[in-house]
Amino acid sequence: MSGMRGRFLVMEGIDGCGKTTQMQRLAEWLPGSGLMPSGAQLVQTREPGGTPLGQALRQLLLHPPEAVAPGPVAELLLYAADRAQHVDQVIRPALERGDWVLSDRFAGSTLAYQGYGRELNRELIVQLERIATTGLQPDATFLLDLPLAVSQSRRADQANDRIEAAGQAFLQRVSEGFRVLAEGRGWWCIDADQAPDEVTAQIRDRLQCGFSEGS
Amino acid sequence: MSGMRGRFLVMEGIDGCGKTTQMQRLAEWLPGSGLMPSGAQLVQTREPGGTPLGQALRQLLLHPPEAVAPGPVAELLLYAADRAQHVDQVIRPALERGDWVLSDRFAGSTLAYQGYGRELNRELIVQLERIATTGLQPDATFLLDLPLAVSQSRRADQANDRIEAAGQAFLQRVSEGFRVLAEGRGWWCIDADQAPDEVTAQIRDRLQCGFSEGS
Repeated sequence: MSGMRGRFLVMEGIDGCGKTTQMQRLAEWLPGSGLMPSGAQLVQTREPGGTPLGQALRQLLLHPPEAVAPGPVAELLLYAADRAQHVDQVIRPALERGDWVLSDRFAGSTLAYQGYGRELNRELIVQLERIATTGLQPDATFLLDLPLAVSQSRRADQANDRIEAAGQAFLQRVSEGFRVLAEGRGWWCIDADQAPDEVTAQIRDRLQCGFSEGS
Repeated sequence: MSGMRGRFLVMEGIDGCGKTTQMQRLAEWLPGSGLMPSGAQLVQTREPGGTPLGQALRQLLLHPPEAVAPGPVAELLLYAADRAQHVDQVIRPALERGDWVLSDRFAGSTLAYQGYGRELNRELIVQLERIATTGLQPDATFLLDLPLAVSQSRRADQANDRIEAAGQAFLQRVSEGFRVLAEGRGWWCIDADQAPDEVTAQIRDRLQCGFSEGS
């Protein structure tokens, strides 16, 4: 399938929405699904931390010593730096080889967490998104949509990172922001308050409808 | 002198221009110069690396393991993140206390190295500068202007960091970029190809003329 650009798929949602499980199932299913051209590989990746630089940045963003914790604008710029390296070193080269890319989070998360959650200027975030991605956009983005209370009960026994620990009102704004983004950006919104097998089935259906026509 | 905002001074120039020596002399002279209000402190700082987060970023920018080295856009965004944290945690709080700030490099270096040197889009860099600084600008910027050949002979026995190792044509563009910036942004350009004492004397003269009238 040389010469054919791969597909770029993204999974978004708040922590506890089932993203990890669904990412894993999707990564197992896709290569034999008939959707990917023969010979194409699936590259599974994530943000922040999809590159060696990104892993260093992920540590500074999510688990920094207190004195090192970035302020809101520095945080926004570090996510953008992680994304720039990720696009440059991983995503764009894979797509140009004809491979498919499945990323756990992408630019939508920055709009949800820093834009809606931290209430930073969203036009500015969109400017930064263009700089960091040099215009690259996902071919499809899934939002696993789950009420905040349900996600929190699912995560009751897990430690929070710095972002998740930012408080209830913050997470409520993030959760609502994701819904606004899904609506505005044409994401595929999946009700994640269902049995995992049902969520998996709906994700597969969407992909088969959306991509089987070579669209 | 409560209520009076401090002054923000920046020293720019290529490596080997004598910045370190002149920064040190200026920092020793300023507090007793009569220019600073009594009670005001001098905060001496630098970019990248003026905060604990910035020190971690400085390491990633200047001395990264090869696999971690940022690409051009990630590099640009990391400098911006360093600057955002620096403005937020160090520079703006100091100025608001009435203290003076003397920084070894600021936003001008990003325009010179990433804009002119790496030839990235300069409008985009200016956008990022506004995001990172939230509009804060120096009250005065010195450029220690030295021909590239002279700076390199001065540095002949020193190890290069990742930026300085980027090659002769790159450094030539940076050097010329600094001159264009000095002209366009009204910096105080000092001929650094003179005896250090003469450079020091000219820096002091400029400050005494520029700031003694409470301008």
